[in-house]
Amino acid sequence: MNPLPRIPSPRNPAPLTIADLGEQGLLQRLQPFCAPGVVGDDGAVLQPSPGQALVVTTDTLVEGVHFSATTTPPEAVGWRSAAANLSDLAAMGALPLGLTVALALPSTCSVAWLEGLYQGLAQCVGDYGTAIVGGDLCRAPHLVVSITALGEVPPPLVLKRNAAQVGDAIVVTGYHGASRAGLELLLDPDRALTGLCPPSPQQRDQWIRAHQYPRPRLDWVPWLRSALAQGQSASASRSFAAMDSSDGLADAVLQLCRASGVGAHLVQADLPLPPGLASWQGLATALDWTLYGGEDFELVLCLPETVLAGLEAASGAGVPAFGLRRVGTIVAGSQVTLHGSDPQEPGRVLSLDRGFQHFSELF
Amino acid sequence: MNPLPRIPSPRNPAPLTIADLGEQGLLQRLQPFCAPGVVGDDGAVLQPSPGQALVVTTDTLVEGVHFSATTTPPEAVGWRSAAANLSDLAAMGALPLGLTVALALPSTCSVAWLEGLYQGLAQCVGDYGTAIVGGDLCRAPHLVVSITALGEVPPPLVLKRNAAQVGDAIVVTGYHGASRAGLELLLDPDRALTGLCPPSPQQRDQWIRAHQYPRPRLDWVPWLRSALAQGQSASASRSFAAMDSSDGLADAVLQLCRASGVGAHLVQADLPLPPGLASWQGLATALDWTLYGGEDFELVLCLPETVLAGLEAASGAGVPAFGLRRVGTIVAGSQVTLHGSDPQEPGRVLSLDRGFQHFSELF
Repeated sequence: MNPLPRIPSPRNPAPLTIADLGEQGLLQRLQPFCAPGVVGDDGAVLQPSPGQALVVTTDTLVEGVHFSATTTPPEAVGWRSAAANLSDLAAMGALPLGLTVALALPSTCSVAWLEGLYQGLAQCVGDYGTAIVGGDLCRAPHLVVSITALGEVPPPLVLKRNAAQVGDAIVVTGYHGASRAGLELLLDPDRALTGLCPPSPQQRDQWIRAHQYPRPRLDWVPWLRSALAQGQSASASRSFAAMDSSDGLADAVLQLCRASGVGAHLVQADLPLPPGLASWQGLATALDWTLYGGEDFELVLCLPETVLAGLEAASGAGVPAFGLRRVGTIVAGSQVTLHGSDPQEPGRVLSLDRGFQHFSELF
Repeated sequence: MNPLPRIPSPRNPAPLTIADLGEQGLLQRLQPFCAPGVVGDDGAVLQPSPGQALVVTTDTLVEGVHFSATTTPPEAVGWRSAAANLSDLAAMGALPLGLTVALALPSTCSVAWLEGLYQGLAQCVGDYGTAIVGGDLCRAPHLVVSITALGEVPPPLVLKRNAAQVGDAIVVTGYHGASRAGLELLLDPDRALTGLCPPSPQQRDQWIRAHQYPRPRLDWVPWLRSALAQGQSASASRSFAAMDSSDGLADAVLQLCRASGVGAHLVQADLPLPPGLASWQGLATALDWTLYGGEDFELVLCLPETVLAGLEAASGAGVPAFGLRRVGTIVAGSQVTLHGSDPQEPGRVLSLDRGFQHFSELF
């Protein structure tokens, strides 16, 4: 009945810390989680497919900033670290070749915690058909996990931020705000019992899972490639724009518009609110979490109608329950506006300031 | 007269911190140091050469562990971070495609310091014909620089740790111990005036430069490829072993031996002591720094005589002043022993315990 992944907890007879094991001992412990032959050379060797472009993306998680080691299970920290990077690959239209893990960690860190982290990492990369192909360990006063993911994509099918064009439909691959709802429930479990219409146990678990074990949308990449290739032959080899929504849906649309020199018109009634969120938290909070919550790791795509139709056809029977949802349209100008039911009203202007910005809002 | 690179100090009219600029402002400041088009997409896109294997290597520098932000100029931190990764590529026989920089940094970090860091990074990668192709910024209580370097190499010419064979010569590409001498001089400048025979100002500057601005030995890679290809056609396609000496010369030999299931016989008189080191610090300390000092970033290669001769011929007129030095021989067994002038004496057994081990010795 509990949909959270059940990862067996690490079995360590003694409360070993990494200082007890030393670097070499630690490397031996972590070897089973990595691709064969990873531990023991200065670098990993991969063989990219001929003719493909290589995509490289890097993402860092810091204890106390992106997660709390006391409240987040290490498996979830590992899963999320891998998922965030795989999501960046998906947002470029790439499929993964492997990822490297650079860990800076305090000597008091327990080996069980570290093994849990690697278990989460290995489970996520394994679920997406790839592997940990390299890494580095060093000591630090604070836990920092830096991951670099490598992927490949046929060069004409690379998705870029700056390729949105006026008239493109803005479509998303899933609900937004569920991760934020899950975080709130983890921070204050009693909140599940409050509100006009508290979430069902199933909703609660789904939201917590969305926060702890987000799923990068690599499932859409093969369908996207097929639809984009068709779309390109029909429209003079144009490129297409995408981002993931790791920093929030509003941030993704704003970044796409800024990079492409366009604006966007979003329709409030079409926003992908998770079912049950508005009736629990009220519409204002639900909209806020949907637009600015972040960490949903869905794709935000800007596609002409014909390509969107092709994508829906390509995904066909394999399409997940949510499918694709059109949330707005790319327009001329530079403003991103959110419109209510009255098409005559000017709409609310959205700005980046409200989004997740590491060095301004958070200090 | 001063051989230290003169990098102009960043000109900032106000003592800006990164919290003042915010993430987007910071990214705009750092864009000039990166390859065009890097800032602004979820990942970087590279085009590897056909038929080459991809090499990936990751390395992390932590403030207070690997450097002190108060005593190390930011340009040197940047240079060393890049150099350490390029050195790992050289140790695999690879030439660089690009590198990514993941920075976790406190909001109080000055923009001038950060720009200095990027200046050092950009200068190092530029000197070696490559570029910063991606990155990530996030806040953290402590400064952590994680770099991932990408390189490529023809698959048969990949250098591995586990390919040393009995009878191979162990050769190095430069002096060892200079970086440690430089560090000691930086920690205590007055030490340059002590000892039986203090270093000349030129030696002092060379050692400090060896510590702050180490040069990865990518210069040897083209010559190595030529000699290895010849050696392979002569000896049934065998592979060859190498490491860099970032964790010390003794550590490199021990790791090569352990991975290859062999031993080594090192000759004390052939060890690559920097000129002037023994007369300044005495032979015991000089040997200690040469074997265990670390961070010299030279190559340690295990090559049959014929390949060594081919390498010397291939490097020809282009060979740097040091050339190659044979420091010992791969032998059967598992012990690494250091031998004095009397070939009948059993030799001193070297062990990994004495080398730089992040989580044991340092705590």
